[in-house]
Amino acid sequence: MTDRPMDPTDDGLSAIPLPPLPEVRPGDDLGGMVVDAWQRLIAQRPMLAPRPDDVLVVTQKVVSKAEGRIVDLSTVEPRPQAVEFATRWQRDPRQVEVVLREAVEVVRMERGVLIVRTRHGFVCANAGVDASNVGRPDEVTLLPDDPDGSARAIRERLGRELGVAPCVIVSDSFGRPWRWGIVDVALGVAGFAPLDDQRGRPDAAGRVMQATVVAVADQIASAAELASGKTSGRPLVLVRGATLPPGDGSVVRDVVMDAASDMFR
Amino acid sequence: MTDRPMDPTDDGLSAIPLPPLPEVRPGDDLGGMVVDAWQRLIAQRPMLAPRPDDVLVVTQKVVSKAEGRIVDLSTVEPRPQAVEFATRWQRDPRQVEVVLREAVEVVRMERGVLIVRTRHGFVCANAGVDASNVGRPDEVTLLPDDPDGSARAIRERLGRELGVAPCVIVSDSFGRPWRWGIVDVALGVAGFAPLDDQRGRPDAAGRVMQATVVAVADQIASAAELASGKTSGRPLVLVRGATLPPGDGSVVRDVVMDAASDMFR
Repeated sequence: MTDRPMDPTDDGLSAIPLPPLPEVRPGDDLGGMVVDAWQRLIAQRPMLAPRPDDVLVVTQKVVSKAEGRIVDLSTVEPRPQAVEFATRWQRDPRQVEVVLREAVEVVRMERGVLIVRTRHGFVCANAGVDASNVGRPDEVTLLPDDPDGSARAIRERLGRELGVAPCVIVSDSFGRPWRWGIVDVALGVAGFAPLDDQRGRPDAAGRVMQATVVAVADQIASAAELASGKTSGRPLVLVRGATLPPGDGSVVRDVVMDAASDMFR
Repeated sequence: MTDRPMDPTDDGLSAIPLPPLPEVRPGDDLGGMVVDAWQRLIAQRPMLAPRPDDVLVVTQKVVSKAEGRIVDLSTVEPRPQAVEFATRWQRDPRQVEVVLREAVEVVRMERGVLIVRTRHGFVCANAGVDASNVGRPDEVTLLPDDPDGSARAIRERLGRELGVAPCVIVSDSFGRPWRWGIVDVALGVAGFAPLDDQRGRPDAAGRVMQATVVAVADQIASAAELASGKTSGRPLVLVRGATLPPGDGSVVRDVVMDAASDMFR
């Protein structure tokens, strides 16, 4: 961290990592740890005290750990399908078993890749089950049960302890069809609407836009990832300067596409 | 624009819109217009003079216009398939015709939605053909022929005239399967590699990461969109503070997935 008490630029967007967290374990008071990290940031840079249109982006990993969404693979008995797939593609059959348990629908299961729909409706590789950055070799994290609720709890805690409730995103890294590479997206939000529906609003040329709904929360999650980096141990990033669509939003309700609209099952 | 000569925050990421451009028309010297906009920014905020690890994000629309990638729909004779689809789904048959001409493969054509693969390999709605913000009612823009080349040309021009060549992204807004809303992605890059391949690098817990390739350029495009907004007429955004993978990258070569790896045709 810099010790310069500098305000981020007052136009445009800033994404600023909060001080690192200690290792998070099941049952830890994540809300309290976030409050503490933000207080340390404010001590160095008072202008970074929370504002109502700030967004704190929290990576899924620390949320899942604090909520105990961890599975010890040594306790998992893989089904024959998991053993077969894992053997063929050199994967851990116990992890494949956990992914299948988290899936309500297998979208693709081929070439070692397992893309499923989760209970929340997310379509993603390995149901979001992840072995990296867990800290213990046989443990994997699962996605939070209710990521919007997780975001809401952190937002309420920050509001209570810091006097102003910023918006909150719980983020994770997802792959996409047709393009290599992962990007961070929002699993849950609190305090704003994750989509900016600009349909019917005029564009710069005065023409009414037909089909522009911008995934603001997902773009904020991506901006935060750029500021944190994957290996830096900085799971908290403050994003200031985005125009947040008002409303009491939910990723699961608003962003996740219903099965009837999905052309890529 | 602010008149405060303030540096963006010196940790984290900043995305700062450049002064607006005049309307761009075919044959316009876009490189010169970008140089001029950046010079006006520097006049107000000297610390925003270009650095080698800055990224200038330029929206596709102004690139396509300057390169003459515009079609006047009044000259287009739609094929029967375009008329049939357009009539059924209340679309402009001439625009559907242009989309089909830009497509090398139709991925989905149902419920009024037309998702195709372009010559570059992009899979996107309407082949990127777009009527918004064009300025004349019967005109649509096509994607640039060679968006990496477009980015390279702007980068070289900036280097020549401003003394330092920043990196450049040409961006566009794409939808995604399974999630509502569009996000900005990179169509072309110059000066860096669009993917950060972290495979084999240890994570914060010391565990070697298995499959982490981060789509850095796409995330930068998304961050820039947040700073510009769709209706603001600010097609240029400076992104400072991202860690750029070194190399002479290309979106078409590096990010576009080959057909053999594509599980969602």
